[in-house]
Amino acid sequence: MYKVDLNSDLGESFGAYTIGMDEAVIAHISSANIACGYHAGDPMVMDRTVAACKAAGVAVGAHPGFPDLLGFGRRNLSCSPKEAKSYIQYQMGALLAFTAAHGLPLQHVKPHGALYNMAAKDFDLALAIAEGVASVNPEIILLGLAGSQMLKAGKQVGLRVASEVFADRAYQADGSLVPRSKPGAVIHNKEETIRRTIRMVTEGRVTAVSGEEVSIEAHSICVHGDNPSAVEFVKNIHAALRHEGVSIAPITEIVS
Amino acid sequence: MYKVDLNSDLGESFGAYTIGMDEAVIAHISSANIACGYHAGDPMVMDRTVAACKAAGVAVGAHPGFPDLLGFGRRNLSCSPKEAKSYIQYQMGALLAFTAAHGLPLQHVKPHGALYNMAAKDFDLALAIAEGVASVNPEIILLGLAGSQMLKAGKQVGLRVASEVFADRAYQADGSLVPRSKPGAVIHNKEETIRRTIRMVTEGRVTAVSGEEVSIEAHSICVHGDNPSAVEFVKNIHAALRHEGVSIAPITEIVS
Amino acid sequence: MYKVDLNSDLGESFGAYTIGMDEAVIAHISSANIACGYHAGDPMVMDRTVAACKAAGVAVGAHPGFPDLLGFGRRNLSCSPKEAKSYIQYQMGALLAFTAAHGLPLQHVKPHGALYNMAAKDFDLALAIAEGVASVNPEIILLGLAGSQMLKAGKQVGLRVASEVFADRAYQADGSLVPRSKPGAVIHNKEETIRRTIRMVTEGRVTAVSGEEVSIEAHSICVHGDNPSAVEFVKNIHAALRHEGVSIAPITEIVS
Amino acid sequence: MYKVDLNSDLGESFGAYTIGMDEAVIAHISSANIACGYHAGDPMVMDRTVAACKAAGVAVGAHPGFPDLLGFGRRNLSCSPKEAKSYIQYQMGALLAFTAAHGLPLQHVKPHGALYNMAAKDFDLALAIAEGVASVNPEIILLGLAGSQMLKAGKQVGLRVASEVFADRAYQADGSLVPRSKPGAVIHNKEETIRRTIRMVTEGRVTAVSGEEVSIEAHSICVHGDNPSAVEFVKNIHAALRHEGVSIAPITEIVS
Repeated sequence: MYKVDLNSDLGESFGAYTIGMDEAVIAHISSANIACGYHAGDPMVMDRTVAACKAAGVAVGAHPGFPDLLGFGRRNLSCSPKEAKSYIQYQMGALLAFTAAHGLPLQHVKPHGALYNMAAKDFDLALAIAEGVASVNPEIILLGLAGSQMLKAGKQVGLRVASEVFADRAYQADGSLVPRSKPGAVIHNKEETIRRTIRMVTEGRVTAVSGEEVSIEAHSICVHGDNPSAVEFVKNIHAALRHEGVSIAPITEIVS
Repeated sequence: MYKVDLNSDLGESFGAYTIGMDEAVIAHISSANIACGYHAGDPMVMDRTVAACKAAGVAVGAHPGFPDLLGFGRRNLSCSPKEAKSYIQYQMGALLAFTAAHGLPLQHVKPHGALYNMAAKDFDLALAIAEGVASVNPEIILLGLAGSQMLKAGKQVGLRVASEVFADRAYQADGSLVPRSKPGAVIHNKEETIRRTIRMVTEGRVTAVSGEEVSIEAHSICVHGDNPSAVEFVKNIHAALRHEGVSIAPITEIVS
Repeated sequence: MYKVDLNSDLGESFGAYTIGMDEAVIAHISSANIACGYHAGDPMVMDRTVAACKAAGVAVGAHPGFPDLLGFGRRNLSCSPKEAKSYIQYQMGALLAFTAAHGLPLQHVKPHGALYNMAAKDFDLALAIAEGVASVNPEIILLGLAGSQMLKAGKQVGLRVASEVFADRAYQADGSLVPRSKPGAVIHNKEETIRRTIRMVTEGRVTAVSGEEVSIEAHSICVHGDNPSAVEFVKNIHAALRHEGVSIAPITEIVS
Repeated sequence: MYKVDLNSDLGESFGAYTIGMDEAVIAHISSANIACGYHAGDPMVMDRTVAACKAAGVAVGAHPGFPDLLGFGRRNLSCSPKEAKSYIQYQMGALLAFTAAHGLPLQHVKPHGALYNMAAKDFDLALAIAEGVASVNPEIILLGLAGSQMLKAGKQVGLRVASEVFADRAYQADGSLVPRSKPGAVIHNKEETIRRTIRMVTEGRVTAVSGEEVSIEAHSICVHGDNPSAVEFVKNIHAALRHEGVSIAPITEIVS
């Protein structure tokens, strides 16, 4: 039987600022990536988000980002691999305090935003991130872009890695994402995104923009809870996958 | 045989900014309180400070403070106990990542600056701090001002607590410190501070400004490494204690 | 003819975080207090908020707060008067860049949150704030709580001051606000708040919780745009004042 | 008679952290670039640095950088031109409050670190910076790398621009700096740096690493006050220039 994880970024609120519909989306996902205070999130938010994940039976991961709250971690920062490693350690540790307090394990680490995108292509940066994760706890899974340098680096340091796919993004013939700056990068037709996702999960294949068939490993699907229609989509993709006989399960049940 | 711990605040540098003579003072102390990025310190500094402690055989503690880098954590902030608890958890966790990476245990937590001073007098705040520490790891020792609400709160939640004394501060008849705003708060005569310290350690007594003899528990002595004369003083007090037959040992060997 | 200013806090969004219904409330007010990046706001938000005020014909003021984004400037911070003065100067200057760029004058300064409340009672702090404002531009009006130390300090340094009242807050016999921690601090009946406001503006009097009649100077009424019902209230109070023959005008047309 | 400006970065301390030997270097320079709280500096430091410049008769400039205190503004950040423009406005404005308070004009703006280096090559970014400066006050001079896009952009928006040279850096045949990553980028021989500087000022020429003679405009020489030997060098270059009949004068006396 097919299994896949549905992951979403939670805990991105900060102080008096609320962002994301965490309460709505949490019912439909199997894993949460929780912001750790650098690009989003704060200790109070982390605490209540871990508690909400526990209550909902959702597995918890860390979502470390660049120290750029003003840019929400979406801007490239030319930090050294050594700096990136220490930022990963710091943020993982911070979240581990809250998972410990709530009696949960930390399932995975998924870098956020610009750090995720940079590490997908830069092996040295990816290796530093992987070493950071392994140095704190080698049992933790590294979640990264399918086919990326991050997964390669994770394997090299002996971590279990999970391959993430995007329901609404177009892929190139080499398995990489069509950059957002290019036309057709985002697939807006909801039925098509669901069909593509089911195929990635059940067949391990996706049709590239060039028309070629590309092999892709889909351990986890990235979904969003930014607005009501995004939440509705998560609900629908969850139902569609179940209808196709795919069960939704946290990453630990998927990667070995 | 008498034993006491010598603790000092390390790892207070930040980015391009260097503060403290960590390399000089580390040779003379048994425990370090490492800043955790809120009032001072950053991930790179935390990493190399934990490494330096490991190399020097110095036990590592977390030194969490208020989120006030601009004020170095020395300004009172009217945060709620719940906020304080989550700040403690966050900062402890962050440091735990680095102690894990270096294969060291986290020995203790000592709140910093205004948080330390406020929690010495405010039981609710102290209790929140103690609960924060216990929630992450109940084996960790809480280091706080001798006779303070912090030690009372730590005991209440079942933590081991360590009682800290100051070599160069005057005490009042109730065992509390003479506030810095009052004349005579700081004892400048080096020989006198050393004599007083030895007496606190070996007799459990100190002479208050009023002339009365006060009972005081001295598990750990707070020393500083801000400048060359401070480091010289640490060296001298270390030697003087040893000369009196007092051995210098980390807190874990002192409190039970 | 009676005149009064309606002021509201705008520009409190930060980076990816949106807060407040600025676009809705701006149509109903005469003066805006714009956050300056310490407790809320950022340069992009400041720029577009000043532009929006210009387009709406709303006078612009600076809304400086404590450097506590995490606490939205609502937590007391024990900073020195000298620190507070420099924080005011810094934030005023930052906003002045944007008013200059848009060709608008800076009408007033209204400290935010905990800084506002602390300075209402602490003359030394209030004096430092007033000196900060005057040092940058003595033509700028200081807006503060009716009857507070802030207004006294502003007058002492030669600033024009404007006295602010709250539509929905109860007053004590000495003209001060009933603290929020006390029952009855906030008046929830909308008609009553409007009646009270009209009376403060047209008669210069308000009924204290003790039943006594208190003199109060109402140059400006503080209103909020946090949510749809708050915006609705602003619309209603604006209409009610106009209906009573009170015109709504920016502070410069009210204080001399 | 030849004239040149000697500029140095001042006011980079932050809170409890001290960096730079401002008091020593200020006696030997004609213009100061004062950090504005984003990559370094804080309101208290800005206030006392402006006061020190006034006392020393040194002209004051703003030294805005990326919002990256942790990286001291030395790390590239992929912000948009619009973001950069607003960061320049914000920081300029903040410093203008302190120059107003001390009755000094703001002479110039010199972007810091990574922002300076990126804008030297990226015309769109440079244009945004220049527009930011001009929008606040078109009388202010833009100080940038000789031959850079920043000077081109400054001229385009109608600002006066000043061309900065480096005493200890090697130049390429196209007039650009040899990147620090390349061998020979920094010239360590003190006499040689002084000889080269005098030639840049009096002849408008420098010998590139390729041996070619390159035209260069030297309105201002960047010097440092990080350590005693740097300060000694500033003293020596000042004396050497005077000895060659070059007078040291602030930028306003050099560019027209």
